[in-house]
Amino acid sequence: MRKLLPFLTWLPAYRRQDLPGDLMAGVIVTIMLIPQSLAYAMLAGLPPEYGLYASILPLFVYGLLGTSRTLSVGPVAVVALMTASALTPFAAPGSEQYIQLALLLALMTGVIQLVLGLVRAGFVASLLSHPVVAGFITSSSILIIISQLKHILGVSAPSGHLPYEAVLNLWGALGETSIATLVAGLSSIALLFAMRGPLRALLTRVGLSKSTAQLIARTGPAVLVVAGMAAVGLFGADTRLGIAVVGEFPSGLPGLTLPALDVPVLQALLPAALMIVLVGYVESVSVGRALGARRRQVIDPDQELVALGASNIAAGFTGGMPVTGGFSRSVVNYDAGAQTGLASMITAVLIGLVTLFVAKWFSVLPQVVLAATVIVAVSSLLNFREVGRLWRYSKGDGALMVLTMLAVLGAGVEIGIAVGVVASLMLYLWRASRPHIAVLGRVGDSEHFRNIRRHTVTTYPGLLIVRIDENLFFANTRFLEDRLLSLVAADKDVKHLVLVCSAISLIDASALESLENFIRKLRELGITVHLTDVKGPVMDRLQLIDIGKHLQPGRIFLSTHEAVVALTQP
Amino acid sequence: MRKLLPFLTWLPAYRRQDLPGDLMAGVIVTIMLIPQSLAYAMLAGLPPEYGLYASILPLFVYGLLGTSRTLSVGPVAVVALMTASALTPFAAPGSEQYIQLALLLALMTGVIQLVLGLVRAGFVASLLSHPVVAGFITSSSILIIISQLKHILGVSAPSGHLPYEAVLNLWGALGETSIATLVAGLSSIALLFAMRGPLRALLTRVGLSKSTAQLIARTGPAVLVVAGMAAVGLFGADTRLGIAVVGEFPSGLPGLTLPALDVPVLQALLPAALMIVLVGYVESVSVGRALGARRRQVIDPDQELVALGASNIAAGFTGGMPVTGGFSRSVVNYDAGAQTGLASMITAVLIGLVTLFVAKWFSVLPQVVLAATVIVAVSSLLNFREVGRLWRYSKGDGALMVLTMLAVLGAGVEIGIAVGVVASLMLYLWRASRPHIAVLGRVGDSEHFRNIRRHTVTTYPGLLIVRIDENLFFANTRFLEDRLLSLVAADKDVKHLVLVCSAISLIDASALESLENFIRKLRELGITVHLTDVKGPVMDRLQLIDIGKHLQPGRIFLSTHEAVVALTQP
Repeated sequence: MRKLLPFLTWLPAYRRQDLPGDLMAGVIVTIMLIPQSLAYAMLAGLPPEYGLYASILPLFVYGLLGTSRTLSVGPVAVVALMTASALTPFAAPGSEQYIQLALLLALMTGVIQLVLGLVRAGFVASLLSHPVVAGFITSSSILIIISQLKHILGVSAPSGHLPYEAVLNLWGALGETSIATLVAGLSSIALLFAMRGPLRALLTRVGLSKSTAQLIARTGPAVLVVAGMAAVGLFGADTRLGIAVVGEFPSGLPGLTLPALDVPVLQALLPAALMIVLVGYVESVSVGRALGARRRQVIDPDQELVALGASNIAAGFTGGMPVTGGFSRSVVNYDAGAQTGLASMITAVLIGLVTLFVAKWFSVLPQVVLAATVIVAVSSLLNFREVGRLWRYSKGDGALMVLTMLAVLGAGVEIGIAVGVVASLMLYLWRASRPHIAVLGRVGDSEHFRNIRRHTVTTYPGLLIVRIDENLFFANTRFLEDRLLSLVAADKDVKHLVLVCSAISLIDASALESLENFIRKLRELGITVHLTDVKGPVMDRLQLIDIGKHLQPGRIFLSTHEAVVALTQP
Repeated sequence: MRKLLPFLTWLPAYRRQDLPGDLMAGVIVTIMLIPQSLAYAMLAGLPPEYGLYASILPLFVYGLLGTSRTLSVGPVAVVALMTASALTPFAAPGSEQYIQLALLLALMTGVIQLVLGLVRAGFVASLLSHPVVAGFITSSSILIIISQLKHILGVSAPSGHLPYEAVLNLWGALGETSIATLVAGLSSIALLFAMRGPLRALLTRVGLSKSTAQLIARTGPAVLVVAGMAAVGLFGADTRLGIAVVGEFPSGLPGLTLPALDVPVLQALLPAALMIVLVGYVESVSVGRALGARRRQVIDPDQELVALGASNIAAGFTGGMPVTGGFSRSVVNYDAGAQTGLASMITAVLIGLVTLFVAKWFSVLPQVVLAATVIVAVSSLLNFREVGRLWRYSKGDGALMVLTMLAVLGAGVEIGIAVGVVASLMLYLWRASRPHIAVLGRVGDSEHFRNIRRHTVTTYPGLLIVRIDENLFFANTRFLEDRLLSLVAADKDVKHLVLVCSAISLIDASALESLENFIRKLRELGITVHLTDVKGPVMDRLQLIDIGKHLQPGRIFLSTHEAVVALTQP
């Protein structure tokens, strides 16, 4: 129970000295979250108030159920993009039907996460390898930037179903560019970059601590929002210059919403929901882990799924979009001093108050300001250099990142991730299917045996010592059988084949079948097979099928040295 | 060139003393192949003559291009079932359109195999793990038996798209059972089983050699065919008793056929073609390998794909159905003394002669005889005991076989195999994602280090020695990081963590990323990470990213013993 409801542990034991940190973090994250939530709702194709709605109850729920003390849950850019790409085929962005589908998507995401968490299947996150995540994040940042360019140019251009359509539509609408909007957009972007870089440097130079400078720099979007609202509200930038504003903005808390459950719709949204589950979870848990490690706090990956699931269900019922733990906000939360989940709950209450009393003023907020916020936020996620770094280490991993990037850019986020996941599996399988095999010899008079190709070693006539550097499993049994048979065929004097199993941690049923055949075949050729350095868990398994009998007259030795001593005795 | 055209090697060097063996094998396989080819064509939903057509040119081509000297290529039961299941959704069995699709399917299968062979991608066969193959073979044998029951009962019942439909249709038609047909069918089955078992035993007892007895027993279907034809031809069993016969049977060699190429049709048949490629290849190559090993002959798996591909293309152009190397016929070919591919070519010529001069008499062949032949042939493929054997060794592998069986029975052969392949991958990934980790200590005064839980060993304060029994790759990085951190957290005195890498053969980019982070985290906690027993290929990779610098002040040792000596010095 305490595992499923972590607040039962920390809330009763709450220390008064943690309050200032939690309060400070709650306030600063609120300032950062307001423009982000409006902007990401827009990116998701939803009216901006839905970003605020998704930042109230979901945050409160995560604060109660999450195992990370500092993770800041809410709308994030990548999930917003995925939401848009999932829903556009089924409804027009901003329409009532589209909003209903967004709620349903949040609910589905939440239910799937909750179930996976309860059956402790956090392992699914392992499916996303580093090159796939890196490629996906860079490409989806490009897609996000492209999607915001229309707001910067002040034109209307639909996004289309496939990424390239957005570019074509944008190109076609280029003639209608609003110069005033473009100027406002570019200066907003410049201002935000200036606050992130030069201003922060300046603040540090005048004596502020590094983290304070960082926190002030993070208020850039909020400053910009106030400036933009002032430009419209006080100087009429909308009517005079034709700058588009957010428009009609309802105030008041969201009502309780109940997404309509319709089986064909559920089926249609399922692939997208699964992808959001995976991507949202991986982003969230890796941020949580990284921040937790700094303070030696432990994250429970399965409970994180439960907490995110509950947050998304809360989003689905209170007019929100799918949420997850965001990277930049969580770092700010941490730096601002968050000690417990109370910080998130304070943010939730503050966003609730904003929605109640301040939100009506957002109607004069220029869209271009939100677009600039999004562009600057995701531009830091572009990481092309990673391709080169991966390529240098391994061409396969580099190629995997490029493939994922191209798949996301060419076919959209869902197919892109699916391609990346399948390609990672194939790459690993291909590698493991042709394992390294080393023929060993003895190093001097020691008990160590090493590869005869890399070391000067002694070998023994009639005795072939081979180390297999991989688990034995279905993907490599045939390859290994062929390789070992050709090694044996190449040396007619071989009487004993010693298989060094130090690198074998698993023998599956396919490999076992193959091993039995192999031992029998070699026996017919007059060669005895012996095993050495068999690991405990592998030995336990082999004993189940009475391996000793199969090997007869071959034996199982504790070490290669022991085998050599026994087999070279006259 | 010699690699792609193996006959260039063996044909010019053909030894006269090999001729009797090849001739004998050619004749005996022909006797066995005639009923089989008719029966499997019927199973595939084709007119029976198409089985003969598929047994002429394809065999000749394989004889020239194959690397197995004894493999007998032609129609086989499982591929025939897959052909039927692929084509029934698109055309009525036996119709002209159905025949055209069968030719196209053979051609597609051939082209895909040829291409895979030329790019040396024989590795794809590794995707089918032993439990999946075992489950698939048993379940498809059940489906084949079900499909033949209507001929035994003498009723007409369509097969339907999904397996259970065949059963329902059969159930519905049960009232129309023809008693005469049923009696003929059951006695045929009894006769065939009797020739396989008791007769063979009897022949051995009266002094025949084991292999001769085996060969005579194998002529059972041919004897039955002659008996059946006699019953109809001489005693009018068809008109008098209402036993269904094959009917109109064209004689003469097949003309050159050119399957129509139509893109949507190609797309629709592609999944089935891919599955036939995979299943046909795996069946063929494993039989070839097993027989080759007995005579120390080597099979080239990639050239086998080329040869099978060419055979299937030949089938597509000469009115055949998809072919592959069959298990029972190949064994007979081997036992009868086949020495080279000439045996297959002799069979091809004999089948050609039969098609020209004898085939017209097959019109009086009772269908029930062919059905009995199929049922008895595939009944030996039923292997339910394998589930138990696999389960005892590993629950995962046993469950995998059951899952594949159920998927094939429930959703058909294609989906069944796909489910099996995906489940094998997931099972392996799941296993590799939670690897075994052993904390090591020194065995007595030796240089050996073993698991502290399994052996009595010495440990050293401040020094944690951990062996990771798995490759480091994307599926297990997170798990390993968590496990190692918790090991370190459990012992506050740890100053040095020695990672023993003897079981690590691969570190992918995701794991590298994680390893760098991990080393950095531990450094912040005041713990130095060292590596030992790093294998050559892994070390080569690690040096690409300058691992020495990352480890500082940690070091890389040749052996665990060396690490312990260095780190325990005062």
